[in-house]
Amino acid sequence: MTTVLKLGGSVVTEKDRPETVAEERLDRCAAAIEGTGDLVVVHGGGSFGHHHASRHGVTAAAGSHDAAAAVDIHGAMKRLNDAVVAALGRHGVPAVPVHPFSAGTRDADGALEFPHGQVETMLGEGFVPVAHGDIVSHAGEGVTILSGDELVAHLAAALAADRVGLCSGVPGVLDADGEVIDRIDAVDEVAGALGDSDATDVTGGMAGKVRTLLELPVGASIFGPDDLAAFLAGGTPGTLVAGDG
Amino acid sequence: MTTVLKLGGSVVTEKDRPETVAEERLDRCAAAIEGTGDLVVVHGGGSFGHHHASRHGVTAAAGSHDAAAAVDIHGAMKRLNDAVVAALGRHGVPAVPVHPFSAGTRDADGALEFPHGQVETMLGEGFVPVAHGDIVSHAGEGVTILSGDELVAHLAAALAADRVGLCSGVPGVLDADGEVIDRIDAVDEVAGALGDSDATDVTGGMAGKVRTLLELPVGASIFGPDDLAAFLAGGTPGTLVAGDG
Repeated sequence: MTTVLKLGGSVVTEKDRPETVAEERLDRCAAAIEGTGDLVVVHGGGSFGHHHASRHGVTAAAGSHDAAAAVDIHGAMKRLNDAVVAALGRHGVPAVPVHPFSAGTRDADGALEFPHGQVETMLGEGFVPVAHGDIVSHAGEGVTILSGDELVAHLAAALAADRVGLCSGVPGVLDADGEVIDRIDAVDEVAGALGDSDATDVTGGMAGKVRTLLELPVGASIFGPDDLAAFLAGGTPGTLVAGDG
Repeated sequence: MTTVLKLGGSVVTEKDRPETVAEERLDRCAAAIEGTGDLVVVHGGGSFGHHHASRHGVTAAAGSHDAAAAVDIHGAMKRLNDAVVAALGRHGVPAVPVHPFSAGTRDADGALEFPHGQVETMLGEGFVPVAHGDIVSHAGEGVTILSGDELVAHLAAALAADRVGLCSGVPGVLDADGEVIDRIDAVDEVAGALGDSDATDVTGGMAGKVRTLLELPVGASIFGPDDLAAFLAGGTPGTLVAGDG
């Protein structure tokens, strides 16, 4: 039973402080993950990725041909990945890094090719692959952003994951009264509550997450860090975004 | 015209001093590479890779299921790769990293699967991908070593490279009198001169290099750092290991 778990950038970093790991929150997540097998982790960029991407004007659609910009954004994400892998390792999770820029690429239409044989072998050998939002090479654009959310959706489909969870900075998708919505079957049910994408997040915010998750063949849960253990134990805390399955 | 260039571990590091970059030699290589287009660089492990691999008992055939060992070896190689990419960047080479553990994998027979779409896109966008010897996930073995030489051979074949060069610590393959052999067409011509593999090199030494290169469809040159500029200008300094082509 394969689980793909996203740890949001606002969970693993202090989003308002450049390149600051949220050590205590990350440690609590690692403690909750301890003992979970057949798991792929993907983390977001938070204060490591977004600032660098904005500064260089790189988004999922608008790229850069500046190698120094690519190395800068990618390097920041690898520093964050080191921290996540190390935190998991301290809790006995056999975490190993997967850096998407080294594996994936986009064609001229922006379609993502992300070979996943390495992830399957890692899982088969008992490792927990830990990937992340990153840049990817993109035909005609140089490099563009690959968000953690897009990668979660891609890997969940490629690996035919049984469970998908997004551990986020909020306890789920909130309605206009600030209450967690239990279940979403279509994006127009919640368009008002979601509003526009968060302009400071190059990777699309909550509306983008919901749209991406609705396309998955399995349901996906969006929940906060306090509910991570419940999700990994088989529960469906927070908001269930029902897939097509 | 695609060129695959190996920078040997004994060129980019001080092989006898743990985790020591050969800054001056690396800088001279970067200066020689400046202005070369359509180029893939692969570097060896030298004093970054081999010590860690030996300490953990990991070879190309004998693996480890210890995630901490994997992170240790891979992390050391990424630190060396950072130094190589940075040195190239200082000379205006649009170098970007490719970490093989994130891309490749071996099946239970040890056969390497290494998808190369990311490398092709990088080349097409004007970047110079810089890969390296690394670990790879290996079905049944956990992780094993992928040598820079094996990766050079694999990428040269996959990319149908026109030219292959190995910039090594010696000026070519030497005969019993210490003279550079101009050309090798079969390994038995030089078996006496090559001797056994260097026992301190987990990745096979000169005999292994020659055997691997003989299987390539194009010829490959083995030369020292002083001949790098001559090779990149189209020459065939050092020893030409004639491929099957």
